[in-house]
Amino acid sequence: METETWIQDIVKQMTLDEKIAMIHGAGLFRTGSVERLGIPSLVMTDGPIGVRAEFEDKRWIPNGMTSDYASYFPSGSALAATFNTELARLNGKVLGEEARGRGKDVLLAPSINIKRTPLCGRNFEYMSEDPKVIEEMCVPFIQGIQENDVAACVKHLAANSQENDRMAVDTIVDERTLNELYFKGFYAAVKEGNSYCLMGAYNKLNGEYCCTSRQLLNQVVREKWNYDGTIISDWGGVHGTVEAAESSLDIEMDIHSDFDEHYMANPLKEKIENGELSEGLVDKKVSNILRLMKRLNMIGEDKGKRKSGTYSTVEHHQAALDIARESIVLLKNEDSRLPIRKEGLRRIAVIGENGIRIHSNKGGSSELKALYETPPLLGIKKILGGNVTVEYAKGYEVADNLKAVYEDEESWQASSTQEVDISKIRVKTDNKERERLLKEAVELAKTVDEVIFIGGLNHAYDLEGIDRLNMVLPYGQDRVIEEVLKVNPNTVVVMCAGSPVEMPWQDKAKAIVFQYYAGMEGGTALAEILFGDTNPSGKLPETFPYHATDCLPVQLGEMGKPGKVTFKEKLKVGYRQYDTDKTEVAFCFGHGLSYTQFQYSDLKAYVSPSKEEICVKVSFTVTNTGDRAGKEIAQLYVSDVESSEWRPVHELKAFRKIYLKPKEQKQVEIKLGKDAFSYYAQKQKQFIIEEGSFVIEVGASSRDIRERATITLGAF
Amino acid sequence: METETWIQDIVKQMTLDEKIAMIHGAGLFRTGSVERLGIPSLVMTDGPIGVRAEFEDKRWIPNGMTSDYASYFPSGSALAATFNTELARLNGKVLGEEARGRGKDVLLAPSINIKRTPLCGRNFEYMSEDPKVIEEMCVPFIQGIQENDVAACVKHLAANSQENDRMAVDTIVDERTLNELYFKGFYAAVKEGNSYCLMGAYNKLNGEYCCTSRQLLNQVVREKWNYDGTIISDWGGVHGTVEAAESSLDIEMDIHSDFDEHYMANPLKEKIENGELSEGLVDKKVSNILRLMKRLNMIGEDKGKRKSGTYSTVEHHQAALDIARESIVLLKNEDSRLPIRKEGLRRIAVIGENGIRIHSNKGGSSELKALYETPPLLGIKKILGGNVTVEYAKGYEVADNLKAVYEDEESWQASSTQEVDISKIRVKTDNKERERLLKEAVELAKTVDEVIFIGGLNHAYDLEGIDRLNMVLPYGQDRVIEEVLKVNPNTVVVMCAGSPVEMPWQDKAKAIVFQYYAGMEGGTALAEILFGDTNPSGKLPETFPYHATDCLPVQLGEMGKPGKVTFKEKLKVGYRQYDTDKTEVAFCFGHGLSYTQFQYSDLKAYVSPSKEEICVKVSFTVTNTGDRAGKEIAQLYVSDVESSEWRPVHELKAFRKIYLKPKEQKQVEIKLGKDAFSYYAQKQKQFIIEEGSFVIEVGASSRDIRERATITLGAF
Repeated sequence: METETWIQDIVKQMTLDEKIAMIHGAGLFRTGSVERLGIPSLVMTDGPIGVRAEFEDKRWIPNGMTSDYASYFPSGSALAATFNTELARLNGKVLGEEARGRGKDVLLAPSINIKRTPLCGRNFEYMSEDPKVIEEMCVPFIQGIQENDVAACVKHLAANSQENDRMAVDTIVDERTLNELYFKGFYAAVKEGNSYCLMGAYNKLNGEYCCTSRQLLNQVVREKWNYDGTIISDWGGVHGTVEAAESSLDIEMDIHSDFDEHYMANPLKEKIENGELSEGLVDKKVSNILRLMKRLNMIGEDKGKRKSGTYSTVEHHQAALDIARESIVLLKNEDSRLPIRKEGLRRIAVIGENGIRIHSNKGGSSELKALYETPPLLGIKKILGGNVTVEYAKGYEVADNLKAVYEDEESWQASSTQEVDISKIRVKTDNKERERLLKEAVELAKTVDEVIFIGGLNHAYDLEGIDRLNMVLPYGQDRVIEEVLKVNPNTVVVMCAGSPVEMPWQDKAKAIVFQYYAGMEGGTALAEILFGDTNPSGKLPETFPYHATDCLPVQLGEMGKPGKVTFKEKLKVGYRQYDTDKTEVAFCFGHGLSYTQFQYSDLKAYVSPSKEEICVKVSFTVTNTGDRAGKEIAQLYVSDVESSEWRPVHELKAFRKIYLKPKEQKQVEIKLGKDAFSYYAQKQKQFIIEEGSFVIEVGASSRDIRERATITLGAF
Repeated sequence: METETWIQDIVKQMTLDEKIAMIHGAGLFRTGSVERLGIPSLVMTDGPIGVRAEFEDKRWIPNGMTSDYASYFPSGSALAATFNTELARLNGKVLGEEARGRGKDVLLAPSINIKRTPLCGRNFEYMSEDPKVIEEMCVPFIQGIQENDVAACVKHLAANSQENDRMAVDTIVDERTLNELYFKGFYAAVKEGNSYCLMGAYNKLNGEYCCTSRQLLNQVVREKWNYDGTIISDWGGVHGTVEAAESSLDIEMDIHSDFDEHYMANPLKEKIENGELSEGLVDKKVSNILRLMKRLNMIGEDKGKRKSGTYSTVEHHQAALDIARESIVLLKNEDSRLPIRKEGLRRIAVIGENGIRIHSNKGGSSELKALYETPPLLGIKKILGGNVTVEYAKGYEVADNLKAVYEDEESWQASSTQEVDISKIRVKTDNKERERLLKEAVELAKTVDEVIFIGGLNHAYDLEGIDRLNMVLPYGQDRVIEEVLKVNPNTVVVMCAGSPVEMPWQDKAKAIVFQYYAGMEGGTALAEILFGDTNPSGKLPETFPYHATDCLPVQLGEMGKPGKVTFKEKLKVGYRQYDTDKTEVAFCFGHGLSYTQFQYSDLKAYVSPSKEEICVKVSFTVTNTGDRAGKEIAQLYVSDVESSEWRPVHELKAFRKIYLKPKEQKQVEIKLGKDAFSYYAQKQKQFIIEEGSFVIEVGASSRDIRERATITLGAF
């Protein structure tokens, strides 16, 4: 209350010019300041994977210093694959510390859009196809960031699940789907995570641009969710002065340098001065920004207490490694092919361009100047040490799409938040060179003790601004893998990518490892997994279908097209589609193996006799039946046996990551609330629960349910 | 014994060709192998500061991979400045682990030549002007390396204290000086450190090339020291077949690729086949190499047990930081100018090119591909965090001598162990640009809360192959410092360099910090010192004279000249000269301040009544009288009151690094043996002790003696 009065007092002292200065970009990554009143610029930065390089204030050109080398953390997809909420908090903490250490006020993270299909170019930043995973991971992540007196800015609200035509596409989504899928993470981010900022998406939602949508921002976010944080546009996401002013947007940002001509700059000032718009609209925005600054100790009595942060420290590198270790997913491990035994190894081969590639410096707004990045080959060599010879062959040529499109660094920098014209992309193919590389790899594979293929995607595919056309591996990798598997059927295949890929050789490979972009120590973590120093404990936070066309939105022709996209699949996203329709998939949601085995038993579930609030208590036991310590991600799904409206066959409602020594067992206890049983009823415009039976399922993945129990909920 | 028999058995099975293959380079960094008998190549690598990049086997061209990024550790000079023998062991351990991790058998380190003058281009690699510091630091360093089943190769024996004309210069040194100064570290390295390998120097010693000197290698090293390790030539240090064969050299290495034409390759084979030389000479060398391989578990029954090492790990980065922290020397701190208080700081300036420079990639054989290197500006920004604005100005232009001489990377690479023609070096000067940079720095200095100047040298000066002409700071830095001090007399001056520099502004600056090349985390450590997160605890392992001409060898014209150099100063090296002659110096040997104060008291010294061996027991108390924890390097010097031969006024005989909490005191106990009192008597050709009085001095530097005690030694 006192704070609100204090804010109103400041607003009263401000001129219109001063207020206007605060609500739009005055530099590429900052708002204007009001020195007279001690109000500083609000300084923002990308992004979710680490703090981006410093740019000139008014030109999209890196400033070229060496003091902006940052720690490079695992991507949102990698973090989600850990299913470890404590690591999410750690990740947020160190990332926020880096942002504050670099003098930032707002960190444009996390990115939590639903992975509606495997094709969205920005999926590598996003966490999951499932809102529960997003909720559980993003809340501690945001809290961790904000411990540092720096704001998280959860993005991009809402339904921003494709990159093609992203600046204009109209996304048509029904209210139930929005509430059950696309809004859920954001709601948790602002209610539980207390995210101080929220970013509007580029796309339109049901006819209105998200960044200035009255329906979305005013009615949902401000009124229904009661949000008093700061709403920031994506860079260039505002398209009109009146709509911006009248929406609950607080700050308009853009990549263009005509700062005074932003919709919420001079054009807005004119409309207020000539009476078309009320100054009160601006006062609200300014108040929201002042409240943010107060929360960050940028202004007010606690200004001197603001935390100062730090970056690029050895501790942060260690944190990056800790997260990377748990993010790797062992997809397949026939005949216990992995881990590779170090004993007796003399000479091994690493094949594939991702063995030596650096990923930190590309991808869009999440690119950064990493202090260092350990690629897999370096990781493998350092883990194996000097007694093993590690030979390397590329196997295939990477035709770098980015280079094809952007001929110089500057235009590539400039492009990263602009649209990419996919018609311009030409993939260079030189068959002779391709055959030479293939032959070299195959010949090498014949002569060594072990072969590790490390391929997948890179940020020419997992990229802001453009979606993939399909899930096929680029650069002819499938043929290389097939040929190498022919001469060495024990070849271990590692896919490094930010999104699922087709693996037509899946049945032939005994061991398949999947690694999302895992940060500066990603190569170290991968090597530890391959050679058994670390027991894999990541699981897939998204389904890997066989083909992109198995995915309903793609089948329906409603993914990636320009103009208008209708989410006709409704709730049938990810496993909600595949599991309900019993579609065969390559690897199901929640799947991930360990070097040990876990047994589930003693599932008990009963309805707690409370009248005010639904509470179902679930307990079960997980036992490590193998001979090495490991971590299991136990998943709990709820299935509504009978419902008056269509519901997915089951939905994830809780998960726990449990560390167990060999032969150890632990009892897991989970309390389920209303949210575990309800669905969004369009008619009532709220979540409701219908009485009747529900099945509680616990298991190791969405398709590896080990125990089931039925409960009955009475009327409410 | 058993091992020796086993070795002889193998030698007997070998053909002359096989033996010859083992005793010379078959690649740039390896000897030939004998596959028939399971004898591998012996693989060597530079160097003392980290494991160098991988080169092609037979061409001096980096192989261009990303898997040879290494940890970059503090230089030998920086390590010595810690005076911390446990850190020396840690440094050796992690460095050796990196070498083994990269598949190496021999690490060409440590470099322990006496710093005879401040001008030697390679001083930055070397440890000290004092043999006791070298002994105490190199022994645990070598032991640390060799814990990893990798050999240290202590270098370069002997009297290799200049770089000019290094491939040919004849160094004339008398026997007493050699034994009391130049041999001491090497003797400790092989006797106490058990260094498996030893490298001969390029220069001649008293008329014979060191690498093939019968006098040095056969009579001193093999006979007198009884060394059974492997003696390796510096690359290109052999100049004849007969002398090589007949000397105790075991392996001839060179930078040229005509491996079969090395002196110890075909030419030697011919001379054996035609009876000019005996095959027994080769057998001895092969035996020494086989013994080395056995010690490293490269061959023999324990082959499977060989350690495998690792590199570029977070743990190694942390070790680099730990060492760097204790290597920094606080030279001056008037009015407790340092540490800079973080509280209330808003805006500071960093001025000087060493604020942003990377040093790991240049300097000669100790250059490497660092996984990363934190320059001081990055260190300062990360330590201060986001509440302080750090502005940067270069202040002066670095005319890069290296670029002037070598126009492309390849010739620079090739040059690094070859001679540099100093007449070719042209320093570009552009007065207009110089004035602009100066003005920019001065203007900046006027407007900020604090100014930190970070200059000094770089590897255009601290460089293998060329000596400095004087100690003057390059690039017009003195003027920049003077002008900045005028507008901000509180300016903190930091000198980053590998060797002493003239500081004509020394009286005007309140605070001066000296940092040797301190590895990948050097900038972090420096920032911690400046802002008080770490209490400085390094001391100078060498005297900083006012001018190079204060140094006797320079005065005598016996430093850096081609052809022949006579060490006419004899024992008058470093403080042995300055303290004896009472020459004023800028900063004396052993000097280094702390943010706390230490008091010395209760010195006691008595001769233990043992008859067999001299033993003097010394004890004294050191008290931390200040208000923060710190480490003091307590030094013990011995002065011979009367001697039949000239002796320096005092000599360092022991030191201890002691950690003390505020107000804490500790008793230090030191036992002195024969070595503390003896000198080398030319006539008797051995170290002798004369009866009579000796003064025991303890204190904080060679010129800050706090307590004295006299003892009397009887006849022996």
